[in-house]
Amino acid sequence: MNRNTMIESVRAQMPERRWIHTVGVMETAVILAKRFGADPEVAETAAILHDVAKYWPTTRMELIIREQGLPSDLLVFDKELWHAPVGAFVAERDYGVTDVSILDAIRYHTSGREQMKLMDKIVCLADYMEPGRDFPGVHKIRELAEHNVEKALIAGFDSTISFLLERGKRIYPLTVAARNDLILTVREAEQ
Amino acid sequence: MNRNTMIESVRAQMPERRWIHTVGVMETAVILAKRFGADPEVAETAAILHDVAKYWPTTRMELIIREQGLPSDLLVFDKELWHAPVGAFVAERDYGVTDVSILDAIRYHTSGREQMKLMDKIVCLADYMEPGRDFPGVHKIRELAEHNVEKALIAGFDSTISFLLERGKRIYPLTVAARNDLILTVREAEQ
Repeated sequence: MNRNTMIESVRAQMPERRWIHTVGVMETAVILAKRFGADPEVAETAAILHDVAKYWPTTRMELIIREQGLPSDLLVFDKELWHAPVGAFVAERDYGVTDVSILDAIRYHTSGREQMKLMDKIVCLADYMEPGRDFPGVHKIRELAEHNVEKALIAGFDSTISFLLERGKRIYPLTVAARNDLILTVREAEQ
Repeated sequence: MNRNTMIESVRAQMPERRWIHTVGVMETAVILAKRFGADPEVAETAAILHDVAKYWPTTRMELIIREQGLPSDLLVFDKELWHAPVGAFVAERDYGVTDVSILDAIRYHTSGREQMKLMDKIVCLADYMEPGRDFPGVHKIRELAEHNVEKALIAGFDSTISFLLERGKRIYPLTVAARNDLILTVREAEQ
């Protein structure tokens, strides 16, 4: 599918303000890809599609999680997490994406995962820091992202975990695993 | 082993300030056990022994973790976590404790675990809130502990996780699992 067709199709599946966010993620992901040595076109495609399922009815997402054997612990956690793995499935089925680095970047853009690949980090970080984002700590994330994708992403996960602590909500284990792993990566790089 | 012999033996293995903390945990655990319907004597024994290995040399703790097949992920996490499972082993080997509820309360008093038993909760919570403790959030923990052991313990784990976020340190997965589980328990009790 060509870029413009994909953009129009994705845009049609979300409210305008979410599309504006998606454009912000696209632009930021391209910048980060160039900065940290990833393929900007791959990053842009992942960014276009990252929230494709965000506004799908939860019943439709749940059906895909069950039918496709996506991680069943998702169903007992916050529905906010569902659109990412469902989005990866949709990207492959409906948009013909076969590049695993794109599919994984979509799949893990909300939760993160252990041993995150560079493309996972870029899309996840772009989602945290695109220009439309405004939350406590976003400036620190943008500052860190000038030089270090891992440190910036740790700060992103910190903000998510802090938010969940404040709200008395559960923390998805994969996010903790992702953050723990990034801390080790940073520590090893500095030794 | 009788109570006084156990007390003298444990006291000899730690600095005086840590013994004062242990006495605080003993008194608090007894109060909490009476409040929430657990056996106060069992709670006191677990509290006496909970930090027995706290001041052991790390090499000695590491040896026990390896030789006894304790969870190997401990070795790649903060050494602060080691004394709890090592303490459970020592309680059984050196103090003849066979009561699983005491051994588990010692084993999980720092990390917590999924599906915490009442005795686990009491010792872990007493460790957070004994009178000598002074950290951001301890008053809230003590307030919640007047009525609800789970809510108080969630607040305890919140303070640990916040501390680790601030310091850029990794979060032990079992603590997140324990907190997630307690949140579900509280939610179900309120439905």
